[in-house]
Amino acid sequence: MEMNDINMQSDNCDPDRPAHPGVFPNREAGKSDHKPAERSVDFPVSVVLPAGGTGERTGLQTPKQFCSFLGRPLISYTIQAFERVSWIQSIVVVVAKENTDLMTDIIQRFQHRKVRTVTGGSTRHRSIRNGVLALGSGWEEEEEEEEEGGSTAERPKVVIIHDAVRPFVEEDFLYKIAVAAKEQGAAGAIRPLVSTVIATTSEGYLDHSLERAKYRASEMPQGFTYDVIHQAYQSCSESDFEFGTECLHLALQYCGTNAKLIEGPPTLWKVTYKRDLAAAESIIKETLSRTACVLTGGSVQAVTLADALQKAVGALEMKLDVIPDLTGDNARYLLKEWNFIQVSVNRSCLSEVKTMLAALEAANRALLHPLVVILVHLSTSDELSVSGKMAEPAAIMELASAAKLRNILLYGVQLQQSKDTERWERSVSRVAEITSALIRERSSALVGQLLQA
Amino acid sequence: MEMNDINMQSDNCDPDRPAHPGVFPNREAGKSDHKPAERSVDFPVSVVLPAGGTGERTGLQTPKQFCSFLGRPLISYTIQAFERVSWIQSIVVVVAKENTDLMTDIIQRFQHRKVRTVTGGSTRHRSIRNGVLALGSGWEEEEEEEEEGGSTAERPKVVIIHDAVRPFVEEDFLYKIAVAAKEQGAAGAIRPLVSTVIATTSEGYLDHSLERAKYRASEMPQGFTYDVIHQAYQSCSESDFEFGTECLHLALQYCGTNAKLIEGPPTLWKVTYKRDLAAAESIIKETLSRTACVLTGGSVQAVTLADALQKAVGALEMKLDVIPDLTGDNARYLLKEWNFIQVSVNRSCLSEVKTMLAALEAANRALLHPLVVILVHLSTSDELSVSGKMAEPAAIMELASAAKLRNILLYGVQLQQSKDTERWERSVSRVAEITSALIRERSSALVGQLLQA
Repeated sequence: MEMNDINMQSDNCDPDRPAHPGVFPNREAGKSDHKPAERSVDFPVSVVLPAGGTGERTGLQTPKQFCSFLGRPLISYTIQAFERVSWIQSIVVVVAKENTDLMTDIIQRFQHRKVRTVTGGSTRHRSIRNGVLALGSGWEEEEEEEEEGGSTAERPKVVIIHDAVRPFVEEDFLYKIAVAAKEQGAAGAIRPLVSTVIATTSEGYLDHSLERAKYRASEMPQGFTYDVIHQAYQSCSESDFEFGTECLHLALQYCGTNAKLIEGPPTLWKVTYKRDLAAAESIIKETLSRTACVLTGGSVQAVTLADALQKAVGALEMKLDVIPDLTGDNARYLLKEWNFIQVSVNRSCLSEVKTMLAALEAANRALLHPLVVILVHLSTSDELSVSGKMAEPAAIMELASAAKLRNILLYGVQLQQSKDTERWERSVSRVAEITSALIRERSSALVGQLLQA
Repeated sequence: MEMNDINMQSDNCDPDRPAHPGVFPNREAGKSDHKPAERSVDFPVSVVLPAGGTGERTGLQTPKQFCSFLGRPLISYTIQAFERVSWIQSIVVVVAKENTDLMTDIIQRFQHRKVRTVTGGSTRHRSIRNGVLALGSGWEEEEEEEEEGGSTAERPKVVIIHDAVRPFVEEDFLYKIAVAAKEQGAAGAIRPLVSTVIATTSEGYLDHSLERAKYRASEMPQGFTYDVIHQAYQSCSESDFEFGTECLHLALQYCGTNAKLIEGPPTLWKVTYKRDLAAAESIIKETLSRTACVLTGGSVQAVTLADALQKAVGALEMKLDVIPDLTGDNARYLLKEWNFIQVSVNRSCLSEVKTMLAALEAANRALLHPLVVILVHLSTSDELSVSGKMAEPAAIMELASAAKLRNILLYGVQLQQSKDTERWERSVSRVAEITSALIRERSSALVGQLLQA
């Protein structure tokens, strides 16, 4: 199943785009044998994201695709998952009429570029059809856009259909679906059944149970050649439009296409209930919290502290890179790191932090995820009184309030040098505990606080 | 379906037990038409909890039923869900031999009382059988225990089988299962299918899809009369023991019992992946964070602040009860509230907090969930310098470190009175934001910190 890698290029194809936190998880998936950026496709692929749902099952007023965590709506995470794939040329989001403005606002705010919005129909199939039709007919009308964006969009060979509420789909799996769809006409993700499936009598009693091993759950994404999905929607009945939900079924029934089924990772799961939003947030937070960058300014004492911290947070499953500052080659951290710890000894480091904030802002880094910046102030004076050593809690609070508006979460931590080894080690491990908690929890309510270690 | 409520009694039947945070959720379930405590059953019911799994799918080293959140392993939450039901007389937990000590430790640490541990078999059915057999034969051997505990255990009429990794089962639903099992011989929870179920060809292509409406997912809990489940396991084949998983199927095949199927709430979901642990934690945290109790000491200024806070956190979906202290009738809060905010004006409230901590400890309140205690210090002096007003950050830290060992999370917040209305309102809303974040996040890394509002 080798492909010609004609469009081979970096995963993060647009240099103006902020970096994303890499491929999502997956310890859960338990395999990562392919590097996503290494394979591409040599035919045009576009995506339809039906997002017309009303979110009844979450128990929330807002439809779940528009619910936010870490300051961003779920659908934006899903769009990002496709947008970062270099060989995907366009994404059509199908939304209910009343949510068009909201969707347009989301696209602007998070600077999504490959996305168009189409109005949905009254059922899932009608919405997907609208999306597919838009992919087939839209290109002539959009010549101005083409000029402006420089995109080379053309009618797609393959259409990938996905749910707006499955944000963790990975490039590697999209590749498999796209290639299989092109070869076979249709392809879909499957997962093993979690529960036994049973047939019930009309009175609500067990009739029989299915042998679990023989069946699979049909999930998303699914891929189709444009011709197959287009013909399926041209041919299908009003009853299909009204009551059906399964695109693979239409391809089989109306085009005679037996879809290729591909086992997907557990991360394809669908955000359905309120608890799933918490689960999704925890996955993003974990992804953002695996590493941090410690800036020492080159001071010996700061380096000693940074090294001790490195060891201590290692035990907390976080990896620290210790560097003097963000100049020269180390400027690359500004483009990839989500967490910065600035260490200073007996003096303010506010000017360094201000410079860093300006650089992060210039790189538009906090567009997609909140960044964390922590000032760690080490006081080496022998006096035991801690207050007064760092006379700028008000300045930190003020800086933090301003940074928060730009999605950068700034906190302070101070600690006292001690010649008592045990005491010192306790302080260091408290700094490690506090900084890793701040990085993991990303609490916006606690920005600007000066914490004691 | 009226029952004789012979055993009618309070849900929280044992006065020595710490209160639990009520019935769990459920906005998700979307219905709560029955008060759990209002119905009971007049026949003996016991529970088998198979907990022998190895947790491969979570991607964690610890089997998922033993993974902890908020300081307690998942299985203890599930045990608690049954233990608080007055009409459930005993619970048999079936664990792998290598986890017996761990389980025994959990039972002791969280003071579970209705629980016995039994060693599991090599498959799910073998483990459940061991649990069922233990329920049938164990009573004679345990006469000493009966004397000691005063329990009136007898061979159960109905056995409920549940998964250790579904912690949010509610009394109301257990009642339905128990009653239906007694009437019908077997009963089981079902849920609508989340995905379309499809049959695959041997080459991995779509063969056909099932009509979703005709099928259901079989979930847990399930209930059986002792005779039915016992006979099913006496009669079934080695192949059933080796490859089967569905108890309802055995009851049908070997006893001719068509189980009654009852649609359960979404909260019956099974903790399967690491993300589900985060979801479960978020549900518990939300449940613990709906209310807090504000103690004013009766001071006029403290009452004014408390009232303003009440309004501000109301907007954050948290309800505050404002009371002067915990004496008299208000001592009841010590037995039911999970969050306390002690307000003081221009003076230390450490002595009140110490008294409260002692009372909470005496009531054994923090056994099952971490309690939160927040000191809010209001300074009314006109001086602008905030530091020095509350000269006891070290004392708070010390108190917090000690309280943390007893599962009580103590934090401090200070704010400055202002005659500038806008400034004052901003401070109050920051106190609201900080306290509600502390209550919701229950971060153990940040205890003892004195935060600025």
